Amino acid sequence: MSSSTIDVNTANNRVTDTFQAVNPVDGTKLVGDFKQDSLLNINHAAQVAQDCFLEYKSTTSQQRATFLQTIAQQLEDNRAVIVSRAQLESGLPEARLNGELGRTIGQLNLFANNLLNEGWQQAVIDTADSGRQPVAKPDIRSHNVAIGPVAVFGASNFPLAFSTAGGDTASALAAGCPVIMKGHPAHPGTSELVEQCINRALSDCHLPAGVFTLLQGTTNELGSELVRHPNIKAVGFTGSTTVGRLLMDIATSRPEPIPFYGELGSANPVYLLKNQLEKNAAQLAEQFVLSMTMGAGQFCTKPGLIFAIEGLGLDTFVKQSQLLLASQQPYTLLTQGIKQSYLASCKKRELEPNITKVTNRAEDGKVLAKLYQISAQDWLNNPDFEEEIFGPQALIISCKDNEQLQELSEKLRGHLTATIHCNEEDFDQAERLTTILNNKVGRVLLNGWPTGVEVCHSMVHGGAYPAATMSNSTSVGSGAIYRWLRPVSYQNFPQALLPDVLRDDNSKGIWRQVNGQISKQSI
Amino acid sequence: MSSSTIDVNTANNRVTDTFQAVNPVDGTKLVGDFKQDSLLNINHAAQVAQDCFLEYKSTTSQQRATFLQTIAQQLEDNRAVIVSRAQLESGLPEARLNGELGRTIGQLNLFANNLLNEGWQQAVIDTADSGRQPVAKPDIRSHNVAIGPVAVFGASNFPLAFSTAGGDTASALAAGCPVIMKGHPAHPGTSELVEQCINRALSDCHLPAGVFTLLQGTTNELGSELVRHPNIKAVGFTGSTTVGRLLMDIATSRPEPIPFYGELGSANPVYLLKNQLEKNAAQLAEQFVLSMTMGAGQFCTKPGLIFAIEGLGLDTFVKQSQLLLASQQPYTLLTQGIKQSYLASCKKRELEPNITKVTNRAEDGKVLAKLYQISAQDWLNNPDFEEEIFGPQALIISCKDNEQLQELSEKLRGHLTATIHCNEEDFDQAERLTTILNNKVGRVLLNGWPTGVEVCHSMVHGGAYPAATMSNSTSVGSGAIYRWLRPVSYQNFPQALLPDVLRDDNSKGIWRQVNGQISKQSI
Repeated sequence: MSSSTIDVNTANNRVTDTFQAVNPVDGTKLVGDFKQDSLLNINHAAQVAQDCFLEYKSTTSQQRATFLQTIAQQLEDNRAVIVSRAQLESGLPEARLNGELGRTIGQLNLFANNLLNEGWQQAVIDTADSGRQPVAKPDIRSHNVAIGPVAVFGASNFPLAFSTAGGDTASALAAGCPVIMKGHPAHPGTSELVEQCINRALSDCHLPAGVFTLLQGTTNELGSELVRHPNIKAVGFTGSTTVGRLLMDIATSRPEPIPFYGELGSANPVYLLKNQLEKNAAQLAEQFVLSMTMGAGQFCTKPGLIFAIEGLGLDTFVKQSQLLLASQQPYTLLTQGIKQSYLASCKKRELEPNITKVTNRAEDGKVLAKLYQISAQDWLNNPDFEEEIFGPQALIISCKDNEQLQELSEKLRGHLTATIHCNEEDFDQAERLTTILNNKVGRVLLNGWPTGVEVCHSMVHGGAYPAATMSNSTSVGSGAIYRWLRPVSYQNFPQALLPDVLRDDNSKGIWRQVNGQISKQSI
Repeated sequence: MSSSTIDVNTANNRVTDTFQAVNPVDGTKLVGDFKQDSLLNINHAAQVAQDCFLEYKSTTSQQRATFLQTIAQQLEDNRAVIVSRAQLESGLPEARLNGELGRTIGQLNLFANNLLNEGWQQAVIDTADSGRQPVAKPDIRSHNVAIGPVAVFGASNFPLAFSTAGGDTASALAAGCPVIMKGHPAHPGTSELVEQCINRALSDCHLPAGVFTLLQGTTNELGSELVRHPNIKAVGFTGSTTVGRLLMDIATSRPEPIPFYGELGSANPVYLLKNQLEKNAAQLAEQFVLSMTMGAGQFCTKPGLIFAIEGLGLDTFVKQSQLLLASQQPYTLLTQGIKQSYLASCKKRELEPNITKVTNRAEDGKVLAKLYQISAQDWLNNPDFEEEIFGPQALIISCKDNEQLQELSEKLRGHLTATIHCNEEDFDQAERLTTILNNKVGRVLLNGWPTGVEVCHSMVHGGAYPAATMSNSTSVGSGAIYRWLRPVSYQNFPQALLPDVLRDDNSKGIWRQVNGQISKQSI
C-alpha cells in the first residue's frame, strides 16, 4: 500500500523505512523499494475496515460476486506483469506461476458462483405454533452473517494462490468481511501488483476502499500488532509452526479472543500397504519421487513420511527412489531463509545415529533432494521425526508388520493429508487405517499422491493440530467461506425486517431448511 | 462416579476426600457423601474414553439415536427422584424442575431424530472428470466425523438441561464423542442420579462404559486438569467469565490447542424504541419485570440492560416497573456463592455516584430484585456497567435520542440476545439496530423477551465474546452437534471403502450436495 502509506517513524518502527525483495536464485536485491508499514498504518487500515464493515456486509451476494469476478478479470488482464514479477521474487518457473494464477482466478470465480445460490447463508426456518403446549412456539429463523474485518497473512510458497488475492482473501471478501492483508516479505512486488488489481475492482464496483488494505514490511511486530488490533475479528495464516503458534497465542489471549485459522505444517504420511507394495514397488517409487520433489518439495502437501513394512517390496521402493533422486537436478528454494532452514534440518536429521541416508550427493549453491530411512522404533523415540521439513526431503519408516504400522498411525499428530496405497487384498487394513486417520487429517487419499489440492466443495484442507489450528475448518474449497461467518437467529421478526433469504416468499428460490425439511418452497 | 472412584490421596488432592451438597434455602448440608475425584480419576476417565473412541464413533446413527432415546426414557422413569433431589440442591421450584427435565428429555430426542436423517454428516460429493484440462479432476467426497473424547462442565443454573445429560452431553454423544462430565458441585446428588440413567442406557445398548464418565469434586484443579488432558479434544462450558476464561486459556495454550466452547455471560440488551414505548410503557414494564425476575433472574438470557430514550414513556416504564418489583417476594438464589456475588455486585453498583436505585427495599435472608438507572454517558464511562449480574437485577440506560441509542449499540460487546421493542413507526430504526446487533449476539428478538430459549434447528444460543468463546457456534438447538464434529474428505476411494452416506447408491436416500447441487438422487 505504498501509495496510501503514512510516512512516520515511531519508536516501534526500528527498521529502515523501506525494504527490497531478494532474488532467491542469486541472493541479489531486486529493483523496487517497498514502504515498511508501521503501527500507524495498522491503525489506519483497521479503522477504515471497521468504518466500511456495515456497508460492505450489507451488500448483496450479487454485488460481492461481481466484485470477485472483477478482481479475477483484473488478474487475467495483468497476467504477464504479475507472473513475471512473481518469477523474479520466488524463483518458481513461469509455467507453475501461470498455473497458480489460473488457480487464483478460479478460486475467485468459485466463491462468486457460490454466492449466487445463497447456500453460504445456510438459511434455517422454524415457523411458529401458537397452539403448542405447554408454551407457544415462536417463529425463529437463522442465517450466516460476516464476522467483521479480518487479517490474512500471505504465504511464501504460493505468492498468488495463498497470498494477496488468494483463497483466504477471496473467501473473506465473499463472506462480506473487509480484509487487511499482511503481505509476505519474500514477494512484495507481486503483492503490490495484485493489490492494484483489487483496488481497481473496488473502484469499478463502487465499493469502499477500506474493504481491502495491503500492509507490507519485514518486522514481526507488523503481524503481531495486526492480530492484536481490537477491530480484527479473525485471522487466516499459512506458514511455519513457530510463527503461526506465536500469532495464534496472541489471537487467543486478547481481551476479546478471536479465531485463528492457521495452517502450521504437515508431513503428509503415506502408507504403502503390503500387497500393493510387493506388486508395484518400482512404479510407486516413481510416483513418490515426482510428488516429493514437485515445486522443490515446497508444497504443504508434500509426502514427507512413508510408512511401509520391511521386505523385498520396500527394498525395491527404496532403491528405485534412490536411483531417481540421484538423477535430479539441484533445486532453488523460495528464500534464503527457507534454504538455510532446509539444510539445517537435514543436517540435524543426519546426525541421528539410527538414520540411513538414502540419497547422498554433495551440495552446491542450490539444494539436493534428501531421502532418509529409519526403523519404526527409532522413529517413535524422537518426536522431531514427525516434523515437516520444508523442501525436497522425505523419511521412510520401516515397520515390522501391519500391527506396528497401525500402532504408529494411532500415535500420529495432525497432518493435512494421509495417503494409503493398497490393492483389494489390503482393503481390511486400509479400512482400519482410514478409521484412525480420518481423525488426524483433513483428506485421506487412496492410491494417489497428496500434492495437488483440488479446489472444490468437498475439499478439506485442514486436519488436527498443527495441520490446522481449527480442525473443523478448511482453507481450500468452497467450505473456506465458513471461517468468516457466524450464525444469527431472528425471533418473531415481521417479513419486512427479515433478510430476504429468510422471508416466506423465498423469492430467489433457494434451498432452505424449513421445520427440519430441506426445501425450495415458499412458506 | 462414586462406585468406580479410585480412592487415593495424592499431593494434588489437598481437600477432604468427600463433600456434601448444601441446601441453598437454609445453608445446611444435605444428606449424601460424594467422592472428590482426583487426578488419577481424570487419567482413568480419559483413558477409557480414548480406548472406546474408535468403537463409539463407528456406531451407526441409528445405534446412537437408540442410546439417546434410552437415556431419555431412563430420565422419564426416574423423574420423581431426580426432580426431588434437584429441588433440595438448587432451591428451584418443583414445576420449574419438572419442566427442565422435560426439556432435557426433549433435547435428547431432538438429537436422536436428527441423527436418523444423517444431515449431521453434511455429505458433499464431487465426482471425477478424467477428461478435465489441464489435469484430471479426482473424485472427492466429504462428511463429518466425531473429534474425540470431550469434556463438559455442568452449570449451576440448569441442574438438568445444562448439566449431566444436558445439551452439551446430548450433542456430543450424538456426534460420536465420549463425554467426561465435570459435575457442578452445587448439585452432586442430581448429577449422580442422572449419571446412573446414562450408565443404564449404555449397558442396555451394549455400548462401552468409557463413553460416559462423571467426575465430581469441589476443587478448581479437577476442571483445569481435565481440560489439560491430552486425550480431551474439545470442551463445553457454561458459567462465569472468570472461571470460563481461565479454562479457555488452558485449552488454547496446550501443546495441542483445542476448541473451548464456553458461554461466559450475557446481559441481554433490550431496546425500547420511541413510538412503541410511548404507546405501551405500562405493558412493557409488566412483561419486563416478569422476564427479569423469572427463575430469580438466574437465566443466561435475563434482560439486564434496558436502553430507551428519555421522556414520558420511559418515566412511565420506570415507575410501573418499580411498582411491580416492590410487590415481589424475596428470592432464594441457587448457591451461597451466587447470593454473595449478587449482593456484592449490587452494592458496588450502588456506590456509583451517578446511578439511581429504582427499587430500594431492605434485605432479609433471601435477596431482593434490584433495578438501577443511569445516563447513556455515565454508562459509557464505566465498562463494568455492561457486565452481567447473575440474579434479579437490571439497569436502565436513558439515551438522549436515537443517535445516542445507536452509538451505544455499536459499542456493545457480545451478548447472547438483543431485543427490540418497536411498532411500524420504529421500523427504520429497528432495521439499523438489527444490522449492528446481529454482529454482537446470537439471537435478535422483536417485541418479545429473551428468557425462554426454544430448542430448535434455527436457534443460535451464542454470540460474540464473552457470550460465546467461539462465536460461530450454538450451545442450544440441533446446530449444537457441530461443535463436536470436523469434516474429512476422501479422495479416489472405491465404493467399498467409503462411509455409506458417501456411496453412489445413496441407500438411505439422504440429502447430499453432489457436484454443487442439493440432491437425494443416487449417482
